[in-house]
Formats: sequence, structure tokens, C-alpha cells
Amino acid sequence: MSSLSPIADLDLRRATLCQILHWLASGRVQPGRLAEVYLAAIERINPELNVYVSMSPALTREQARAGEHRRRDGVIGRLDGVPIALKDNFDIAGWPTCCGMSGSVKPAEQDAHVVARLRASGAVLTGKTNMDEGALGAITHNAHFGATHNPYRHGYTAGGSSGGAAAAVAAGLAVAAIGSDSLGSIRIPASYCGVFALKPTQGEISTRGMTPAARRLDTVGLLARGVDDLTVLLQVLAGYDAEDPRSRHRRVALSPPDWEPGKLRCGVLPDLPALGVQQSVADVFEAALAKLDRELGECRKVDFDDWDFPRSRRAGFLLMEAEMLGTFAAQLADTEHPVSPQFRRLLDYAARKTAADYAAADRVLDAAALKMRRLFAQIDVLVTPTTPQAAFPLDGPIPDTQGDLTSLANLAGCPAVSMPMGTLPNGLPIGMQLIGARGSDLRLLELAAVWSATLDAAPEYPGFRDGR
Amino acid sequence: MSSLSPIADLDLRRATLCQILHWLASGRVQPGRLAEVYLAAIERINPELNVYVSMSPALTREQARAGEHRRRDGVIGRLDGVPIALKDNFDIAGWPTCCGMSGSVKPAEQDAHVVARLRASGAVLTGKTNMDEGALGAITHNAHFGATHNPYRHGYTAGGSSGGAAAAVAAGLAVAAIGSDSLGSIRIPASYCGVFALKPTQGEISTRGMTPAARRLDTVGLLARGVDDLTVLLQVLAGYDAEDPRSRHRRVALSPPDWEPGKLRCGVLPDLPALGVQQSVADVFEAALAKLDRELGECRKVDFDDWDFPRSRRAGFLLMEAEMLGTFAAQLADTEHPVSPQFRRLLDYAARKTAADYAAADRVLDAAALKMRRLFAQIDVLVTPTTPQAAFPLDGPIPDTQGDLTSLANLAGCPAVSMPMGTLPNGLPIGMQLIGARGSDLRLLELAAVWSATLDAAPEYPGFRDGR
Repeated sequence: MSSLSPIADLDLRRATLCQILHWLASGRVQPGRLAEVYLAAIERINPELNVYVSMSPALTREQARAGEHRRRDGVIGRLDGVPIALKDNFDIAGWPTCCGMSGSVKPAEQDAHVVARLRASGAVLTGKTNMDEGALGAITHNAHFGATHNPYRHGYTAGGSSGGAAAAVAAGLAVAAIGSDSLGSIRIPASYCGVFALKPTQGEISTRGMTPAARRLDTVGLLARGVDDLTVLLQVLAGYDAEDPRSRHRRVALSPPDWEPGKLRCGVLPDLPALGVQQSVADVFEAALAKLDRELGECRKVDFDDWDFPRSRRAGFLLMEAEMLGTFAAQLADTEHPVSPQFRRLLDYAARKTAADYAAADRVLDAAALKMRRLFAQIDVLVTPTTPQAAFPLDGPIPDTQGDLTSLANLAGCPAVSMPMGTLPNGLPIGMQLIGARGSDLRLLELAAVWSATLDAAPEYPGFRDGR
Repeated sequence: MSSLSPIADLDLRRATLCQILHWLASGRVQPGRLAEVYLAAIERINPELNVYVSMSPALTREQARAGEHRRRDGVIGRLDGVPIALKDNFDIAGWPTCCGMSGSVKPAEQDAHVVARLRASGAVLTGKTNMDEGALGAITHNAHFGATHNPYRHGYTAGGSSGGAAAAVAAGLAVAAIGSDSLGSIRIPASYCGVFALKPTQGEISTRGMTPAARRLDTVGLLARGVDDLTVLLQVLAGYDAEDPRSRHRRVALSPPDWEPGKLRCGVLPDLPALGVQQSVADVFEAALAKLDRELGECRKVDFDDWDFPRSRRAGFLLMEAEMLGTFAAQLADTEHPVSPQFRRLLDYAARKTAADYAAADRVLDAAALKMRRLFAQIDVLVTPTTPQAAFPLDGPIPDTQGDLTSLANLAGCPAVSMPMGTLPNGLPIGMQLIGARGSDLRLLELAAVWSATLDAAPEYPGFRDGR
């Protein structure tokens, strides 16, 4: 095909999706080889990171082969030949959807909406990734499938609940990954693992075939090694699905509105440590903002004094846990493969809550949504650290603030991007979050593309240095 | 002003809003006289029908006077000088919002969104109308404010919960009225009282300042004596309100899509009596369809075999009652002005329900919404009787099916029109309901305008015959 030199294995594993699409298009790599490089890396590295919980190399190879045929015929899809991982709360026809729980599950009958779209675009499925039990949690220290380790430090959490997906992307074990995000489950692990993430506007990507956590908050989330990769994935996956009651007719403008650098109205929170953000994270954030100075436009302090984070958090969790009592009724009743004591404790808490408590929590979320609406009448983008802390030891205490900053976007159905903004003194990466008004997804991604180029803060998986 | 003859009082009371706007514009009636005619009729007839629960003739006169000044200055609003009634679950600044409950309530601080829009359009407020306690019910037999009587038969229900509003419009005690509709509260009384009603697409008219029943289902509803009146009211009241978390950017097309008579895809339910519709109502419905034959286009039987009406009804009520435990917490705790035993019993039932029950009910509604979405991929309009029965005696048993056909629209957020379709053998009016896909409000109204002209079935308040 091409006379250009082939790409080294390691380069295929650290390249962005857009770079890989370019190499595929120019014939410098074939889908078959790409799949083999990723399968070999997974076999080598997965035992150590525990990223994947189920795989089917035969299916991966078959899809890659089909991609080679299509490429020869000249009719290819938007993601043709690209190895992509899926969090284990999406249905793949013929696979069990474990959702981080033990117990025998019947294989799914139908592909989830996003899986069908991935297949139609020619993507190659690498396998399903580890997650918190029932997607309830943010550490991916799973009682049934073990802990996923942070690619930047063994023994540290990758975050969650899409921890396996984020670690897979960071360690070059998938080009991109699809997860879910109900209070921050895609952005928290992206922040801890130094990768890029998008939680789109609610209703923009169908959640059909994704195990529900809290329907009001649930969105499909995207993980990749570059901002532009997220734009490509969004274009492939977004669109109205009549079979998802929360799907909405396209509201994300196909071309983003213009924004003039220097005229942006950018909101920041006045006192991050007072909101529970670690001082070292606040320092990295300040340094990043200083670096972005010329691009921030008019920077406004946003008054969140009356925002009661713990109250919103409790409300979100109540919706989620109450709904999970129904979603996981079979698993909760299965004495042969019991759920973990921690999971049961969380759901027992919700089981004691009344219908009136649920309605009251739902109204707390309405109030929070209004607050965000009012905010976005005054600013274009809210900029925060993605998480109040970086990755922490798997055997240490779990901070309860992990999702405080990410959940702001879910409460209001707003899109949010997380991108690497730097490294803490302990060497661990940490993300910056951009939240925009509903429907501003592409604008946010455009902004993140410019800013991340300025910051140039995406870390590299230490394994690459050792040629692993 | 005009040399044309003045309009008789009775004609001012039975005219449509559009006719009255025309008379006002041509100077054949002045806002002041219009207000006096309505105030006098209310004074005369209200003791008998018990339609209004609070009034302020001084405010009504002041607004009418202001309308006369504006008219002299030549700058008038869309509803300038038109007397309009409000259900007592909307805030008017300075008035208590009783919502059909006893107990002392502080005067509202701000106008509800619709009240502000009515004022801005020059409408004249006649007063607040009777309703079911807490808007929970469909008979307007209120334990604290007494029963509203059906204008067509004393001792019979006007329906509810917007019973006072519908009876006021039917008996010529308001030109139009604003009520609320969460499972049918605007259309049920419209059906029983022989007037026209619109429940718009959810989110189209802001519910800010309306006492919430179940936010997921709540809409503002409109009542009038003509279809075109509803279109005018919708245009005045609809629009995005950033302060209402469920308000949506305008989705109702400003001009309705074309539809070709004869090419309409019209859905009807195959076996109405099996769904609890009284045979006499089904007969009137069949006769109306026969009359509309040439305009129905392609008429399809809609399969609702697997629609579990009682289950959807219970789910809707659970959402409503659970939320009311919070909304009316003060009233429920007020031992000096206790809520009625019936109301307490309904809410006690909800108080025993768990958060998981609430989440499960919410999912039942999601499933129902999907079902309606699928339906509107196949048909343009679903046509049913508005209610399975006409008005019944206030002292008789209360059927539990009153809202089964109307709630279909609320579950899915769809717009629905109710219009008179005929009279039962016992002489009481009964309505036909048209439900369309979300956003098809204007198309539905256009269809209802054509059909209601063919049916010509709007009854006349018997009081008019006696000159009352």
C-alpha cells in the first residue's frame, strides 16, 4: 500500500485517535496490525493494571479483518479500524453486562445504542472495562473484579466509576473508551489518569442499553488522549433516539458559535480550598490559569456561597441509590453471589428513604439546575479543577468530595470537558474542568483544544518509558 | 367612539374571546363596561355555582380603567380589557394562594409567570376560582370552599381540579380562564362543562408561581369558549422562562405545519367500553367521528392492549402525592385548620411509600412516554373522548377512571385539546380530546378549529335562556 515507514508499536499506543485515523487513511498502519498491537499490550499489561474484565480477542480480530476488507473496498466508517473499549455497563449483544457485580447474568440480547453506532462506524471493540460495583462509587476498587490500578502509580486508585476505561486509555490499552457519567464517573478517572473526557449535554447521546444509575443524571461519557478525539466520538455517537425517553432532538450546534479570544466570559470559584479542594490542586489550577491568562477573557468570580455541596451530593446519591434498588433487585436478592457489604449498606440507606424524601431530593436538583442556568446567563464557561484531589492510595481513606465539582454539570444537564492541567508535587496528574451551558458541547471542545495546546500538560504513561 | 349599536350584556357573556377582542377593537364595547357586565353576572350567579373563591372588584375595575386609558392612547396589549379568571393555585402578588386549602396563607410576594404575562398583555383579572383541595382530585367538591356546581345541572360536578375555572367560562363569568393540568385537571372540567381547553406541550408555558402538583407532569392549562381563543392565549403565555427548571426554549412552531385534509393519520382506540368508557359516551364519540368522516383522513386503530391504565394512574398519583407531602407540609401540620380527612388519607398512603417506589413509578412514566413517542411516529393525532363519563352527581360515587384518557398526554408531555363533541341522552355535554406529538400545539388547535366547526357541538349555558 504505502511506501512510508511503519509506525512503532509504542507510537500506535500513545497516539491520539485523530493521529491514528490519519495513519490508517494514509495506509501507514492496517486495522489488523493495530488490533494486534493493542491485544498484545493488553495481554502484557492488564494483569498489572486490571483494566479489562472481559474480552473477546476473536471478535476484536474479526472486526479488524472486516475493517481491512472495507478499506480495500474504499467504503469505510468514521472510526473504521480504531480499537475502542467499553465500560461494563453497556450491553453488547451476546455478552453479559456485569456492571461491576458478580452473579450470573444473561447475555444481552441487543447492542446498546452507542455500541450499535460504534459498530456502524467500523470501530473495533477491545473489551469491557472494570468499574465500581453498580457504578456506585468513584474508585474502581471492585469487590468482585478487583481494583484497577492507576497507570501513574500502582496501588493508587484510577478513580471511578469508569476507572478501567480511563486507565485503559491512559496506558495505551485502547485508543478511546466509552463510559458513563451520572455525577462525574467519566471525568473523575480522567482527572486521576491524565486523559481527556467529555460528558455531553444530557439527552445528546442515547443511554439505551446502558444500565441506568439515576436517569435524571445519566449520560454516556467519552474518554480519549486528545480533545479532538472527543469531537469525533461525539459526532459519531450523538443524535436523537426515539427509544430513549430522555433522548432529545439534536441541540448541539453542528458548528460551534464563534467566540473571540479575550471576550470570553469565564467564571471561576473564589475560594477553592474552602470548597474542599486540596491546596496542592488549587496551586496547580492557579498556575494553569496564569498560563492561560491571555485566553481567559474576562474572568469573573462566581459566587457559590449558598451552594450546599453536601446537600446536592446527598440528593444525587439518593436518586441513584433509590433507583438501583429496582435496577439491581435480582442481584440484591441473589444469596449465592451476594453484593458487597459496602454496596448493600449504601442501598440499605436508600431503602429507608420515603417517596417524599425522593421528591424532595429531586427538587433540590431542580434548584441546583436553576442556579446553573442563572450562572450561564452571565458567563460562557465555568472553569474548575475536575476533582478536589488527585489519585489516592487504594487502601487509604476515600474522600467524600470526589464528585463535588463534576456533579455541578450533571445536576443541570450541562456538558463538561476534563483535560489534564498539570502534575501535583507527588507526580500525579490532575484535570481541569470546563462546564458550559446545555448544547455548548462543541464550543467547549473548541475552547479545550486551544487551552490544552497552551497548557501542554497531558502526562505520559510511565510504562512507555520502559518500552512497555 | 363608534356609532354602532352596543352589544347586549348576555352577548358579551357568551361571546368568544376573539369576538370580544373584535368588539373592543371596533369600539362597540369598552373595557369598563365589559368588566361591569362580568362583575354583575358573578355577583348574581356565583352564589349558585360557587365558581369564585376570591375576588377584588376594585382591582378588576382599576385594570379595566387602565385599559380604557391605554385604548385612548392607542397602545394596547394582546388581551387588553379582557376579563380572565385564574385558578387559585397561581400566585397573584398580594393575594393568598389557597390552592383549595384552608388555613392562613401569607399573600404571595410575586405574580406567577402567567399572571405577569396576563398583566403585561392588558388582561383584566376577575378573581380566583375554586378547585379540588391541593389540586388532588377531579370533582371540585372542596371541603373548605364548598362544591362548584356544573352550569348544566345543579348538584352535578363541574369536574376538576380546575372545576371553578371551567364553570366560570361556561356560565359567562369570565371570558377565559387559566388553570393547571397534571393528569387532566383542565380537560376533565372542560369536557363536563362544554368548553374548550388546551394543555400545551410540557415546558411551553412556565409554571413558575403555580403551586406544584407533580413537576414532571404539571402544565398550565387554558380554558375558553372557542378554539381560536386558546391560540391567542397560548401566544400570549408561551415562551422560555429561565427561572422555571422545566421551561424549554420554544418548540411550538409559530406557524403550524401544513396538513392536507384527507391525508391526516388519525389514531383511535379500538374498544372504548373495554377501557372503561361509558357506552353513552362511546356512542356520542362514534356519532362525532361519523360527522367528521371526510376530515379524519386515514383512521387507524391504535393498539393499547398492553397499556395498563390503572398502573399508569397509580404511578402518576404517587409522584403527585409524594411531592405534595413536601409542598403542603405546613398545611398538613396545621392542627387549627386541618386538611380534609380524604386529603390526609391520600397523602398518608403516599407517606408509606419508599424512595424506591417513587423511582419505580417514575420509570413506569418513562415507559408510558416511550409508548406515546412510538405512537406519534405512526399517527399525527390521537382522538378519544376527553373523559370516560360526563358530569355525575356531587353526592354520588366518584369513578376512578376520570383521568385515564387525559393522563396519556401528561405522561408523555404532549399537547392535548378538548372540545365539545355532543350531548349525552341526559342532556349533559361531553368533550372530544385530540392529542398530538410534543410541539404540535398549533397544529392541534388548527385541526380542532376545523373539526369543531363541523361538529358545531358547543352547548349553551342554560342560564342564558332565562336571561341570567
